[in-house]
Amino acid sequence: MSIHEEVELLKTVPIFAKIEPAKLKLLAFTSDRLTFDAGQELCHQGDIGDAMYVILGGSADVLIDSPSGPIKVAQLQRNDFVGEMAILCDIPRTATVAAHEKLTALKIPKELFFRLVAEFPQMAVEIMRELAHRVEDMNVKLTAAKAA
Amino acid sequence: MSIHEEVELLKTVPIFAKIEPAKLKLLAFTSDRLTFDAGQELCHQGDIGDAMYVILGGSADVLIDSPSGPIKVAQLQRNDFVGEMAILCDIPRTATVAAHEKLTALKIPKELFFRLVAEFPQMAVEIMRELAHRVEDMNVKLTAAKAA
Repeated sequence: MSIHEEVELLKTVPIFAKIEPAKLKLLAFTSDRLTFDAGQELCHQGDIGDAMYVILGGSADVLIDSPSGPIKVAQLQRNDFVGEMAILCDIPRTATVAAHEKLTALKIPKELFFRLVAEFPQMAVEIMRELAHRVEDMNVKLTAAKAA
Repeated sequence: MSIHEEVELLKTVPIFAKIEPAKLKLLAFTSDRLTFDAGQELCHQGDIGDAMYVILGGSADVLIDSPSGPIKVAQLQRNDFVGEMAILCDIPRTATVAAHEKLTALKIPKELFFRLVAEFPQMAVEIMRELAHRVEDMNVKLTAAKAA
């Protein structure tokens, strides 16, 4: 994929949408684009994490250990990001993320993530927005569980 | 309270901790500091929201409507922020927040919030960190509920 195509692809990802193309070129150069086969893990629950991932293609399962085995708690699609917890909160990975099918992801190391957020507040706003949505989704589910 | 005392107080709030005092002075001038008596509402579920709140003193209950009446889903303390969902996601208030006891809060209107985030990426990082923690807490609770 040419750098131009790479930038065009990144522009379609909501958290990068407001970043100017010249800066996206820098992102394309400084981040790794990885491919995972079905079943391969992006990260493993309990491990130390030093990067987040943005799904560029394919899908992934989010699995959490339980006494009766791993429970699938979410499925990730193109444009979703994952792994931000470990780099924001300095805690081990809280879930295992495994490719559900062949998957392409952008790996953003911790240092790059903080540089991006400092330089592109709009990216921070999009991430806050997505996290707020997740909190809201879970609130609805938990309230349903409590009311049941 | 003098502006100096106000700035000293704001410096102790984690999401503002990394903002320089001169800028905190501006925050103290441009935001409203409100007092609520026990039972008084900061916001009401379903209403349109145009501000978030940072609790400076006292405590508040977060209540969500259910068929069997309001359910308390969380309690807020000093330094907690609330109401970010409505301004980040442009949706009506997802919960009612009522003072549990006499409460002081800083009201940050939407426009000021976005200006602060753009100017102080560190504030965005602290908010992302807190939201990521909330997602994680809820994940643990939901996984427990699913495994039960």
